[in-house]
Amino acid sequence: MRSIIIKEYLPSKNGWEESIFHTANGYLGIRACPEEGVGDDVFSVRGSYINGFYDIKDISYGEKLYGFPETAQTIVNITDVQGIKLFIEGEEYSLNSGEILKYEHELFMDRGYQEKRILWRSPLGKEVYICVCRMASLVQKHLFILNYKVVPVNFSGEVTIKSSVVGDVENFASADDPRLAGEAQSYLVVDEADFVDDDISLILSSTKRSKLQLSCAVKHRHSKAFEVEYEKEGNILTTVFTASAKQNEAVYICKYCVFVDSRHNDKPREKSLEILKDAISHPMECFMNKQQKYLDKFWDTSRVIVEGKKLQRSMDYGLYSLLCSAGQDGISSVCAKGLSGEGYEGHYFWDTEIYIFPFFLLTNPEIAKELLMYRYNILPKAKEHARIMGHDSGALYAWRSITGSECSAYYPSGSAQYHLTGDVSHAFVQYYLATGDIEFMQKYGAEVLIETARLWMDVSHEREGVFYIDSVTGPDEYTCIVDNNYYTNCVAKENLLWAYKIMEILEEQGLDKNIKKKLNISDKELKSFKKASDKMYLGYDEKLGITPQDDSFLSKAKIDLSSIPEDKFPLLLNYHPLWLYRHQVCKQADVVLAHSMFEDYTDKKTMEKSFLYYEKITTHDSSLSSCAHSVLASKIGDMKKALSHMESSSLIDLEDTHGNTRDGIHTANMGGLYNCIVQGFAGLRIKEEGLYLNPQLPPKWDGYSFSLYFQGRLISLKMTKKHVTLRLLDGEPISVFLFGDKIKLKDKERILL
Amino acid sequence: MRSIIIKEYLPSKNGWEESIFHTANGYLGIRACPEEGVGDDVFSVRGSYINGFYDIKDISYGEKLYGFPETAQTIVNITDVQGIKLFIEGEEYSLNSGEILKYEHELFMDRGYQEKRILWRSPLGKEVYICVCRMASLVQKHLFILNYKVVPVNFSGEVTIKSSVVGDVENFASADDPRLAGEAQSYLVVDEADFVDDDISLILSSTKRSKLQLSCAVKHRHSKAFEVEYEKEGNILTTVFTASAKQNEAVYICKYCVFVDSRHNDKPREKSLEILKDAISHPMECFMNKQQKYLDKFWDTSRVIVEGKKLQRSMDYGLYSLLCSAGQDGISSVCAKGLSGEGYEGHYFWDTEIYIFPFFLLTNPEIAKELLMYRYNILPKAKEHARIMGHDSGALYAWRSITGSECSAYYPSGSAQYHLTGDVSHAFVQYYLATGDIEFMQKYGAEVLIETARLWMDVSHEREGVFYIDSVTGPDEYTCIVDNNYYTNCVAKENLLWAYKIMEILEEQGLDKNIKKKLNISDKELKSFKKASDKMYLGYDEKLGITPQDDSFLSKAKIDLSSIPEDKFPLLLNYHPLWLYRHQVCKQADVVLAHSMFEDYTDKKTMEKSFLYYEKITTHDSSLSSCAHSVLASKIGDMKKALSHMESSSLIDLEDTHGNTRDGIHTANMGGLYNCIVQGFAGLRIKEEGLYLNPQLPPKWDGYSFSLYFQGRLISLKMTKKHVTLRLLDGEPISVFLFGDKIKLKDKERILL
Repeated sequence: MRSIIIKEYLPSKNGWEESIFHTANGYLGIRACPEEGVGDDVFSVRGSYINGFYDIKDISYGEKLYGFPETAQTIVNITDVQGIKLFIEGEEYSLNSGEILKYEHELFMDRGYQEKRILWRSPLGKEVYICVCRMASLVQKHLFILNYKVVPVNFSGEVTIKSSVVGDVENFASADDPRLAGEAQSYLVVDEADFVDDDISLILSSTKRSKLQLSCAVKHRHSKAFEVEYEKEGNILTTVFTASAKQNEAVYICKYCVFVDSRHNDKPREKSLEILKDAISHPMECFMNKQQKYLDKFWDTSRVIVEGKKLQRSMDYGLYSLLCSAGQDGISSVCAKGLSGEGYEGHYFWDTEIYIFPFFLLTNPEIAKELLMYRYNILPKAKEHARIMGHDSGALYAWRSITGSECSAYYPSGSAQYHLTGDVSHAFVQYYLATGDIEFMQKYGAEVLIETARLWMDVSHEREGVFYIDSVTGPDEYTCIVDNNYYTNCVAKENLLWAYKIMEILEEQGLDKNIKKKLNISDKELKSFKKASDKMYLGYDEKLGITPQDDSFLSKAKIDLSSIPEDKFPLLLNYHPLWLYRHQVCKQADVVLAHSMFEDYTDKKTMEKSFLYYEKITTHDSSLSSCAHSVLASKIGDMKKALSHMESSSLIDLEDTHGNTRDGIHTANMGGLYNCIVQGFAGLRIKEEGLYLNPQLPPKWDGYSFSLYFQGRLISLKMTKKHVTLRLLDGEPISVFLFGDKIKLKDKERILL
Repeated sequence: MRSIIIKEYLPSKNGWEESIFHTANGYLGIRACPEEGVGDDVFSVRGSYINGFYDIKDISYGEKLYGFPETAQTIVNITDVQGIKLFIEGEEYSLNSGEILKYEHELFMDRGYQEKRILWRSPLGKEVYICVCRMASLVQKHLFILNYKVVPVNFSGEVTIKSSVVGDVENFASADDPRLAGEAQSYLVVDEADFVDDDISLILSSTKRSKLQLSCAVKHRHSKAFEVEYEKEGNILTTVFTASAKQNEAVYICKYCVFVDSRHNDKPREKSLEILKDAISHPMECFMNKQQKYLDKFWDTSRVIVEGKKLQRSMDYGLYSLLCSAGQDGISSVCAKGLSGEGYEGHYFWDTEIYIFPFFLLTNPEIAKELLMYRYNILPKAKEHARIMGHDSGALYAWRSITGSECSAYYPSGSAQYHLTGDVSHAFVQYYLATGDIEFMQKYGAEVLIETARLWMDVSHEREGVFYIDSVTGPDEYTCIVDNNYYTNCVAKENLLWAYKIMEILEEQGLDKNIKKKLNISDKELKSFKKASDKMYLGYDEKLGITPQDDSFLSKAKIDLSSIPEDKFPLLLNYHPLWLYRHQVCKQADVVLAHSMFEDYTDKKTMEKSFLYYEKITTHDSSLSSCAHSVLASKIGDMKKALSHMESSSLIDLEDTHGNTRDGIHTANMGGLYNCIVQGFAGLRIKEEGLYLNPQLPPKWDGYSFSLYFQGRLISLKMTKKHVTLRLLDGEPISVFLFGDKIKLKDKERILL
């Protein structure tokens, strides 16, 4: 049984608990807020979200320059269906009063639901056992079910449960943290709030400016013992259940909540009622069974077996959370906080392509494809954005966005991160190399590669036969607006090459005509891509023997990180950006990441030296950093460091080591944790020549194992102290590179080394 | 007679006219708005201002990072005393109705007042001559007088004049232009609005957040023919004058307006009444006579005689405007737009020290000293600002401010302009060298030089014995956050040297003890300043033989400015900053300015080549640019270009070549125009060794002349085709360098060369 459990309710950790135990399915996400609410002094973000369901807000600037976006999208806190109040003999249940005799909150990752089990003694001495079970169906994505069971322990008497659906909701705000939205806002306006067909609570709302519609329909199954009444007060619809309950006999209500929005359906109201009516005819167990089947299949190919319970738990939690976070509809992707909170306003960043995509690509390529479709679908917006930024041709993906238009209000570590465009192209290339899906490339991928390559042609400039890229920001946000950021030049180099190559491949197969015509591509242009790629400048510092992060990084002032007091971290909350830019200090992996993504662009010695140099000056203030360090540590064979960085990565959410999990989980890091094993320990790389594996074992480990899809084959890898075992579980024979040697996998034969 | 005159009223140029003909005296500034108001479709900024009288407003950020200022000061539009409505036989006078038979608006720069002369025919055919005279007293700075004279031309009949004082005023706003304030705001709240002593209109107000007080007291002198009534409506106090006027006989009212604010006086209300009562006992002519005397003295030493009426007019207008803009109280300075408008929110920038200060230093050193006192008085704020920006010691002057705290909401071309701190030190050094005022240096100057030098020690870093300054922005705002901006390193080098030198000089004179103790200065620290100055990195590009603007400028993409359509200028309003940063394009003089300020830091050949290189890629989108180019053009002996750049500079306001004079005049450029002749044509430099002059004449010119103070002597220079004539007009004999040769000036003897 794979579960996360906590056995104590700490008001000070309420926000963290709400994030960690949130319920989501890639479409819908509901934070694990106490149904009955919290006291005034308890941090709580009472939030529910639909992936990609947004409103628009103005961005204010003290000084607004040309091209600064005037509005931003923001994920909307939707109709609140969490509300349940419990009264026993008139006494209201609350974690703030009475006595909590037992508290357990558990997430079953193999079954796909959460359970909260509480034994509570009221101020007047009545004891009740409360068990709350929450599930967002992975099969019927519009459906969220909440089962609320009450058992009188030491009395018989009246039990009242008031279950509400609240239409007037606000987004959360914190004025000071730049990583959160600026000001509290209500985005959703209720158009209709009433009981429909007697017992269905229906709330229809619209967003103020994006004019999206949302319908929320709720109906209950319940114990026969209950008498039911319906109350409407403003936009709060309450169903009141009253029963004379007997000692030790359970009563329950089971709340079926259906959400349908107008981005996904033309008629949200009708559709929500239709889905609800169908769902309510089945007991919750029925959906639980389907949930388990779905997850059995997921874990079967996705699980990574690692060493140690704690790490295994983090790994399971990470992969489970990724599944629950990923949009699979081509109009949504993976928010920086998944669907667990409002941090970063529900925007999609580069996280998806670089940190999360590899997991889906290797375990659930159909989901990976949907994530790429999202990028394809917003390509027109990326072209618009490129024009705003002054580029006459090409597509520049926005740094943070939902619909594709730029939402970054601070461009030096926002829009200036041009690398995102290369990150997107990298994902398309990896997808093609891992799946061989040439049809997809013909229909969608080539267009993205061509338009992004055009961007690099426009942004780069040639000087004496070499191509340079100036005034951009790389992944490291403590060093902004620089020339020839190594990471950026690497992704641009790959992007340009593959725009050329994919057309070559399509031409060989006679598939290039339509796309060439549609995009008006000439051979001359394709050759120019190739030339720019070949001649892209990649820096090297002779003196230090390392890769410079950018043209000026290594000449900046050095600083000893250990001289900075601990309470000054994360540095971005305690130092002016200019101070950070002026020093050799990194928020996160930059060169380190580039080296593991593009190991063939340099040699191992440079990687080694670069790793040691940058590791010393990296604060890991970004949750995207430790995992990237772990991967490169493995690459250079320092398995001790690989392990230790991976361990840091594994603790970020479950132990709240960044102190901000209450704003939502760190999805990119979860993908990163997967990468620590698969790209790191196992040294997996997907290259044009095929799949490369270089498995290593960290000190004291007995082994690890995982499966992966490659070119339609399902392959398992098991690493132990004695052996590497590769096995073709499904599909035609295929050759892979193990420790550099080409070996053939066939049938179900094991390869032992 | 030195005057500016326009002979036509064009509604489309109303805003420009309001700025050009504004009335100011360094303390008070009132735009030349039509007294009776304008039609809805006419651009007008109905504004009156007191230098340094500000309120506080919040700055909004879409993403706020550490150290971003949360509030800004903004100059406040004060009580409106301009309002006068005229009725002839019931018909209301307006420039929008009837017929303007004659319109003349004239500024008398030798007399210090404006006059508007209008012959107007009413819709019913009555003709009146209206003459409005406005003066802000240069002697009694709290006093503004407006004389309104009416002559019935073709009729006799009732004339009514309604003169109002309006307490409820708002600042002007334009949402789109980053150079103007963001949103319309009312900052002033009326505390009292009533008639006092029967006939004095008194409005007492306070600013909302800065809690400053302002008292405005108004009383009229008037023709005996008038009957007078007093009307109060809300916070509008109106004095109504009615008379049976006879054809061809003038009637007038003369409005004495006194403003006193709590930054300058403890009891504004009492003081305003006191000043008003004293002033009103004297006819306007009395103040006009004093005004003329004051100006006779001013022009006597300040006037620069140049070639051509048009240029002479620009020069006169510029110097007159500087006088009317300069705060002389140690708590105000020169706003970017003087007191003629709200552009740049009444903030003080580096403009004062680098562009304007030289004029005052050479012609009115007492005013120059007051400008320095302003910087001395805000030194504590500069130290606070340095801490916010991450510096453990030293003082960093805010980029834009009134009280000294940073008001820049876009730091890449705001707070990042560290050079301002060196600009301030440069002004102190120039002051010392030009006046020899060691007492001032002991009391104030040394402290500023030491604290600013400490800033450079903290911001620079040493690598292999050389000092570098990273991640700052130089004067050119099209290239931000760069390493080793040449200009910045130059001012830092001088600043560091003079912090050392001034202490050496004070020590020699036994004046160093107090300051050393107060600032805890050790000899070691002083030596470290000297070393950092000596070893300050100043770049040189071997290949091009020019000075690189910064470490990366010359490797950026080149762009042909002539390929950019004209409607895309100024570029900052049409291109995203990253696009600008990515190209070799300059908004304004940067290296060019550095070379003329610090000619001894390089050689003439480098200056020549640099000039030619940067001139080609400079858009002069900043009004601070052409003048700086002119000065360096003279230095390298290209007098044709020197003339042409000077001519561009001379047209900015009077011909509105930047299209934004309606927001206020460009004071820095006015100082710059002076510098074109004095530093440019005449090659004046103030150095440790003394005064240097290298007069040249541009092609086709017959000559120019001016006077200047140096070391307490008044010296005149006259350049003609045949001769340079130097003359010591006042003071002890002194040696100066003429064309490099030391010559002695004594008595009233002329030196002819």
